[in-house]
Amino acid sequence: MSTSFVHVHQVRFDEIDAAGIVYFGHFFTWCHDAMAAMLAPVDGGYAGLVTRRRLGLPTVHVEADFASPVRFGDEVRIATSVERIGVSSVALRFDLTHGTARTHVATIRHVAVLTDLVELRSRPLPDDVRAVLEPLQTTS
Amino acid sequence: MSTSFVHVHQVRFDEIDAAGIVYFGHFFTWCHDAMAAMLAPVDGGYAGLVTRRRLGLPTVHVEADFASPVRFGDEVRIATSVERIGVSSVALRFDLTHGTARTHVATIRHVAVLTDLVELRSRPLPDDVRAVLEPLQTTS
Amino acid sequence: MSTSFVHVHQVRFDEIDAAGIVYFGHFFTWCHDAMAAMLAPVDGGYAGLVTRRRLGLPTVHVEADFASPVRFGDEVRIATSVERIGVSSVALRFDLTHGTARTHVATIRHVAVLTDLVELRSRPLPDDVRAVLEPLQTTS
Amino acid sequence: MSTSFVHVHQVRFDEIDAAGIVYFGHFFTWCHDAMAAMLAPVDGGYAGLVTRRRLGLPTVHVEADFASPVRFGDEVRIATSVERIGVSSVALRFDLTHGTARTHVATIRHVAVLTDLVELRSRPLPDDVRAVLEPLQTTS
Repeated sequence: MSTSFVHVHQVRFDEIDAAGIVYFGHFFTWCHDAMAAMLAPVDGGYAGLVTRRRLGLPTVHVEADFASPVRFGDEVRIATSVERIGVSSVALRFDLTHGTARTHVATIRHVAVLTDLVELRSRPLPDDVRAVLEPLQTTS
Repeated sequence: MSTSFVHVHQVRFDEIDAAGIVYFGHFFTWCHDAMAAMLAPVDGGYAGLVTRRRLGLPTVHVEADFASPVRFGDEVRIATSVERIGVSSVALRFDLTHGTARTHVATIRHVAVLTDLVELRSRPLPDDVRAVLEPLQTTS
Repeated sequence: MSTSFVHVHQVRFDEIDAAGIVYFGHFFTWCHDAMAAMLAPVDGGYAGLVTRRRLGLPTVHVEADFASPVRFGDEVRIATSVERIGVSSVALRFDLTHGTARTHVATIRHVAVLTDLVELRSRPLPDDVRAVLEPLQTTS
Repeated sequence: MSTSFVHVHQVRFDEIDAAGIVYFGHFFTWCHDAMAAMLAPVDGGYAGLVTRRRLGLPTVHVEADFASPVRFGDEVRIATSVERIGVSSVALRFDLTHGTARTHVATIRHVAVLTDLVELRSRPLPDDVRAVLEPLQTTS
């Protein structure tokens, strides 16, 4: 069984490319936005984590499979779950579907590492970040 | 008579929007890139100005007239000239033309203010920045 | 007296620039997003206007004054009003304030022209677009 | 032995994020730009392929490992090689290094599929595209 955090993105006019569909680079930003929204419960939210506590979650590994194109006006549903929690790192899985038809759009995985942004060194995940991640962990 | 600094931009695949032409927001970035290239002769270049000297040139005023659409594969020629130099500010004019046909694309004006990025306060333009701007000043 | 359409933007992690504040180019996109949200009541919404009816509202003129910097984590409130409605064109005014403090951030004006996206020619504003714009018109 | 196509990217002011380093999403665009530059020899170039021949190379799979942060002012060298050529698809490998120090920045892999952009269906790679890819194929 698994739980996921759901975030919805409305495709913007400027996200379309010369092929007439969403440019693939934007998908990674939607996933990052989903992570930021998921981290809202931490002290200061994701923005406070970065600007006040000077901690970040830079992505060190990405894997993505794109199954169907997305167009202007589409709504994309991003379900975020947690595949693995390490001392400093977390493996996030984002399942993207068309908002209405629920057609599969893409599966994207990010491994992010909790990083001290002043020294650019990894740090153990703070307790309030862990508290957000643990309930979203998939169980096998 | 006037002199200008010429910078060329190749339109990218992802700069096209859902209307099939370049999204208007990208034009401002091309002008900013032109300014950065123009400032290459200052101590450390524009990047050194920002990251090492902690001085920036945030835009405080923009005026733009768009005359003709730009498409994927187009090359855009940006001619930068200086309309006015103040103590802290500079009024830049960017004339954009299609690279080959030389058709008029847009006229864009930015007023930028030399700013201490630590305190976010205006500062007099440093001598090396002035030395880049003065020869590009249009004379009436 | 005037009425305005209010749209709120949460500043994203990737909208910050090397100076540590929001990159000025993003403001134009937020205004475009505000316009798109404002046009939701038209037949098919703004996306339907563009993709199905093949009509767009490209920006032909921009004026912007930036008063105070915006940072990661800020919420920006965009109040859109209509300064002038022509046969094919509309002059939009966007007043941007910090979401909480209500400090003035920027005043941005876009003139947009209703355009047939197949032929790239101006067309009279359709009735349903006018019906959205007219109640937002400022009266002097 | 292997050959690669080298493309250089100057990091832009607006590519920096709230953590003070390049936002990871931009790396995918640099790789896409490198592919576009690599395809310059095809009939009409990459832009002609997309706009005139209505053929594209949408990315269907991405893998990326990020090893070191990139900052404003850095120059990034992207060496593109071809790991596998199928009937319709190509597996591209991008090795990113700091332009001067040659420090390893990232390894990114894209699988792209030659696609008819009108019908959004895969098509065999045209001969002129194959002719660009084959000399860049890594041999084991």
